[in-house]
Amino acid sequence: MKNSFGNSISLTLFGESHGAAVGAVLDGFAPGVPVDEAFIASRMRMRQGIAAISTKRREKDEVKIISGVFNGKTTGTPITFLIENQVQKSADYGDTRYFARPSHADYTANVKYHGFEDYRGGGHFSGRLTAPIVAAGALAIDALKRKGIFIGTHILECATVRDAAFSDYKAQIAFLENADMPLLDAAVGEQVMSIIQKAAEVGDSVGGILETAVIGMPAGVGEPFFDSLESELAHAMFSIPAVKGVEFGLGFDIAKYLGSKVNDAFDTEGDKVITTTNHNGGINGGISNGMPIVFRTAVKPTPSIYKEQQTIHLQTKQKATLKIKGRHDPAIVHRARVVQDALTALVLCDMLALRYGTDYLAQTDEQIG
Amino acid sequence: MKNSFGNSISLTLFGESHGAAVGAVLDGFAPGVPVDEAFIASRMRMRQGIAAISTKRREKDEVKIISGVFNGKTTGTPITFLIENQVQKSADYGDTRYFARPSHADYTANVKYHGFEDYRGGGHFSGRLTAPIVAAGALAIDALKRKGIFIGTHILECATVRDAAFSDYKAQIAFLENADMPLLDAAVGEQVMSIIQKAAEVGDSVGGILETAVIGMPAGVGEPFFDSLESELAHAMFSIPAVKGVEFGLGFDIAKYLGSKVNDAFDTEGDKVITTTNHNGGINGGISNGMPIVFRTAVKPTPSIYKEQQTIHLQTKQKATLKIKGRHDPAIVHRARVVQDALTALVLCDMLALRYGTDYLAQTDEQIG
Amino acid sequence: MKNSFGNSISLTLFGESHGAAVGAVLDGFAPGVPVDEAFIASRMRMRQGIAAISTKRREKDEVKIISGVFNGKTTGTPITFLIENQVQKSADYGDTRYFARPSHADYTANVKYHGFEDYRGGGHFSGRLTAPIVAAGALAIDALKRKGIFIGTHILECATVRDAAFSDYKAQIAFLENADMPLLDAAVGEQVMSIIQKAAEVGDSVGGILETAVIGMPAGVGEPFFDSLESELAHAMFSIPAVKGVEFGLGFDIAKYLGSKVNDAFDTEGDKVITTTNHNGGINGGISNGMPIVFRTAVKPTPSIYKEQQTIHLQTKQKATLKIKGRHDPAIVHRARVVQDALTALVLCDMLALRYGTDYLAQTDEQIG
Amino acid sequence: MKNSFGNSISLTLFGESHGAAVGAVLDGFAPGVPVDEAFIASRMRMRQGIAAISTKRREKDEVKIISGVFNGKTTGTPITFLIENQVQKSADYGDTRYFARPSHADYTANVKYHGFEDYRGGGHFSGRLTAPIVAAGALAIDALKRKGIFIGTHILECATVRDAAFSDYKAQIAFLENADMPLLDAAVGEQVMSIIQKAAEVGDSVGGILETAVIGMPAGVGEPFFDSLESELAHAMFSIPAVKGVEFGLGFDIAKYLGSKVNDAFDTEGDKVITTTNHNGGINGGISNGMPIVFRTAVKPTPSIYKEQQTIHLQTKQKATLKIKGRHDPAIVHRARVVQDALTALVLCDMLALRYGTDYLAQTDEQIG
Repeated sequence: MKNSFGNSISLTLFGESHGAAVGAVLDGFAPGVPVDEAFIASRMRMRQGIAAISTKRREKDEVKIISGVFNGKTTGTPITFLIENQVQKSADYGDTRYFARPSHADYTANVKYHGFEDYRGGGHFSGRLTAPIVAAGALAIDALKRKGIFIGTHILECATVRDAAFSDYKAQIAFLENADMPLLDAAVGEQVMSIIQKAAEVGDSVGGILETAVIGMPAGVGEPFFDSLESELAHAMFSIPAVKGVEFGLGFDIAKYLGSKVNDAFDTEGDKVITTTNHNGGINGGISNGMPIVFRTAVKPTPSIYKEQQTIHLQTKQKATLKIKGRHDPAIVHRARVVQDALTALVLCDMLALRYGTDYLAQTDEQIG
Repeated sequence: MKNSFGNSISLTLFGESHGAAVGAVLDGFAPGVPVDEAFIASRMRMRQGIAAISTKRREKDEVKIISGVFNGKTTGTPITFLIENQVQKSADYGDTRYFARPSHADYTANVKYHGFEDYRGGGHFSGRLTAPIVAAGALAIDALKRKGIFIGTHILECATVRDAAFSDYKAQIAFLENADMPLLDAAVGEQVMSIIQKAAEVGDSVGGILETAVIGMPAGVGEPFFDSLESELAHAMFSIPAVKGVEFGLGFDIAKYLGSKVNDAFDTEGDKVITTTNHNGGINGGISNGMPIVFRTAVKPTPSIYKEQQTIHLQTKQKATLKIKGRHDPAIVHRARVVQDALTALVLCDMLALRYGTDYLAQTDEQIG
Repeated sequence: MKNSFGNSISLTLFGESHGAAVGAVLDGFAPGVPVDEAFIASRMRMRQGIAAISTKRREKDEVKIISGVFNGKTTGTPITFLIENQVQKSADYGDTRYFARPSHADYTANVKYHGFEDYRGGGHFSGRLTAPIVAAGALAIDALKRKGIFIGTHILECATVRDAAFSDYKAQIAFLENADMPLLDAAVGEQVMSIIQKAAEVGDSVGGILETAVIGMPAGVGEPFFDSLESELAHAMFSIPAVKGVEFGLGFDIAKYLGSKVNDAFDTEGDKVITTTNHNGGINGGISNGMPIVFRTAVKPTPSIYKEQQTIHLQTKQKATLKIKGRHDPAIVHRARVVQDALTALVLCDMLALRYGTDYLAQTDEQIG
Repeated sequence: MKNSFGNSISLTLFGESHGAAVGAVLDGFAPGVPVDEAFIASRMRMRQGIAAISTKRREKDEVKIISGVFNGKTTGTPITFLIENQVQKSADYGDTRYFARPSHADYTANVKYHGFEDYRGGGHFSGRLTAPIVAAGALAIDALKRKGIFIGTHILECATVRDAAFSDYKAQIAFLENADMPLLDAAVGEQVMSIIQKAAEVGDSVGGILETAVIGMPAGVGEPFFDSLESELAHAMFSIPAVKGVEFGLGFDIAKYLGSKVNDAFDTEGDKVITTTNHNGGINGGISNGMPIVFRTAVKPTPSIYKEQQTIHLQTKQKATLKIKGRHDPAIVHRARVVQDALTALVLCDMLALRYGTDYLAQTDEQIG
């Protein structure tokens, strides 16, 4: 449904970059879940990135919850997150609004909406739309933690450098929760900073690969044929602007190996069924198998670069040369990871609620009647 | 919705490998579209693969359309495709049913359905469920062709070999439609055959990467934020058993480059707006831009191999050694490509109908009233 | 979604009156529920009505379950009900196909489907489409009974006569389950038979009001604002051909009274919260309150009558006189009640599964692993 | 989906009576539709009712559109309506919060949300939630008018008095648009005022029957089997708090007549196919037939009355006597009619967009590119 996603728990997104506000409505979320505003604020701050590698003016992004929370806890009715835009009055765009920025949505939005779209700052297609996702996701992440389910995302690759692999999931996920630069190997973190700064110096941009791990997910969750866990997670990930690939477990590399090398043998660990390897990323037949869920996304370099680019004028269809002004990030990969965490949490909450009922995440021991 | 997919046009899938039948209901499809049974049969045959690299006993897979078609044309009401299983009586599984096959859905289905699942031949999780998708997809492919939209899929990689890239889309898509072995470079085709045969000889299996191209898609189609064209296509692709990755345009490689190298500059070609490169795979901001839509999937090696594997007993949770019997494919990548074509066509029909109305694909010039 | 209904549990309907078959796919239904084929058959027989007041040739309506049931129990995957049409070869309609039958869907279907619709016997708009609903509903009714939830429907009014009101719900619902003529007062039953026969004698038809009661429904089920229990039930009821009204509790009469007369005061009965009256039909604010859910539908007289009627020719738009031939029921109200029971059960199963999870109806004590 | 409704065009509702705000997100609405703020304000004012028969303190209900509108026109992206609550700080409820008001949602919400619901003023179940529906509906009503589709609702019955029937639809709908008291017969209007005032004097309340007519709807719209026009409209109407019945055309009365009396004969009027009577309320087989769509709803008396009522304490389950304080309306029927108009318009826009595409309501002649 266009700007709504989810079945039992759904998120509806609204807003434009330079309009009054961006926001989201989270519906179907269980009652009685405490709202940790400090945690929401910490996720919002991480989404804004690190000043050293961000030239963009950063808004404060104060999240107002205007419905669905009462006495500090969720009520079970729709929760609305509102983030007012501090930069609403935009400079006169003049004719520049008609010069479609390459690899942005300017041209396609113009075709789809016949020129009525709010073009300022990318409008509804701005990365700013991910802010309310992060706010809603913080609630979901927190509720999952209370059920023993933990989520973390790191930058696996940026240009030519590669971070360490996940090894001790629990500790590394805990580390990532407080890491401004989400890399498991500190040395690589410094290299990534340097790469981004160098790209910024020449008015260019870089992308990267984000890797997410989820631990504590019970086996038996997922709704194949069509609503496999992979389908639902990929659907959500591909809605993040800039994501051009999603893979689970070994992902594209799995195609290189023989079946005997990549099948995950079953074993037991105490009472628990496990697999001795996890090449399938915790999902068999579209259903969680209890192992860590592991997937990666490909994040393209920010399309807003300062180098001169060729484009066309949306109305006259004449060729033109474009030099983008303003402040733009030379990379978003380190910021997108909280978006990825957030959407992962929202998808899992939805699938869990579908499986176990709308009270699955409820904290109902304290207050009834 | 679990076994249904699509908004304006939806497909509902049912059946088990060794039950009475597998089938699908296609709802919302436009009236007046001629049903080309020979084309459906040709897609079904391609799904069965090539005898030389298939040891599996192949069923005839005769498609019966039991509703929604009248006088050889679609009526606009639900179209039901039914494929009766010829192998229903299965040998006694005895205790082997409890030995979960590694990387299959046996274990996860057992947890989800509490042991009530039809375990014979993988039940609802069998690749056989893709047969009705191919049948329904044939109708969609054919209807899209009448609107000038063409779809083709080739094996881009298999183990260590790599096919030629798409260059002349139109001709290559036409070629693929009649190619039993879907490779653009004939020499590579022979290598792939040899690789699969060698894996079969040692009781092992191989996977591969499938690449799909769509041409003729109008610009302006896609429903971001959440129902981007990428999200919808990926959702569908990840429902194909064995798919572990999906990427658009440059995909994961895009993360290696600077923005200035991968932004697609705009230009014009006659009246038409084009991009001079197509690193984004025909999609900007989740909306088609009129360029070829290009994406790839990672297909894992068939998990059914003849080599001895370690597993557990589903009831006793004891460790066990498993040697899979029966006839199994050493590769499915050459068969899966028609499934990929089919789901691509169904997603595009749905998104087009949502955009342009339920009559978009109708052939209404011949008969009204 | 057009021919699919339900969220957590959905039903997808297909088929035409004179096509190969009618059927339905029930998705999301819990595993481990025993399938009582005799009960399904008894509901199918009741749907066919009583020979004495039915001139229509009655088909045997044998229900084949071709997926989703294994060893006599549901598997958790889609359950497909197939009812083959025994009358497929229809006499040549000649030009009569173009004479739209008043108050039927002939004209509107013709506009919607541009003349490609299967017009024979009403095609997809035939009352025959309710047969698979009854089959699927029988499974739902049976599963609800195992949870202590019971459903029954009687003819409250037919022309000028009126049945007794529900008084002892439990006993009366049990009585209705085995009553061919669903009336609580036997004397009224005879009057209704006589009214229907008299209408038949003069080639005319009658309608009626059906009243449904549900007992045992737990309080707290319903998903307002938009998916109130009333909204979901009414949505389903209005899909039954011939239903033109739906009301809950006092229904339209409630508008005549002062608030002080119709508010339902709360009280307790042992541990249970009750209301001393039930003018709201067991639903407050769109959510079940634990009291009997009571609603009524208005069923219009069968539009197929033998009297001469005025119509137009669909192609020429010329006025014409129509005399319907064939065998048609002078009333369907006594047959429609099992359809109403079935859809009620399906809606409640869906809402319960959404609330309590997909295993709510599962009978999992016998078999795990 | 709980607080979202619609397929191609959807409305998501949020907020609580005494929270920060109530609001709605309208998604999928066509671009380029001018936003008439004066019309929105006039509908909001009508929803607040007439001072003479309203003792409730009325808030200003200023509608802020915070997304989806740019330069006075819709953009095609989600439109968010926000209405801040002026009365947020509520007096201490003390123990009275635990006394469930009869026929309100207090008890059922308490069971469903385990006591975490915002109980102040009915919270999410307050009639106040209809305010953003009216705002969004105003946009839909206006867009439909531009396509020649007009909607109007009057009070057909209130207690013992009955308004004139629709006769000259066009003129009467135009009249209703500007009538504070929506009655076709001015004399009846005075009687209704008097009835409501008398109920108010004795601390009681009255209900009524609302009748809606739609003219200009093209034939061929509706998506049976399950998404018939009746099903969709009834689904929406039953979400209005206080509605306990919905009927189309003759409605419940149709059950009293013989088929020959109520079948609507076809005829032509110029090029247009018409029916000589309209007992089916403009819908055959769930699809519009081009005649006026006519339906009625039963609105129960406001459950908030000043008379002493019996109830229970939500926590202790002890019986208690309740005397509701504060300011409450003795009737809402005259206010609910704009809600009914609004939801009718939203349903029709959705069904039209599904049929004819998302641009159906777009005003694209002025601005492209």
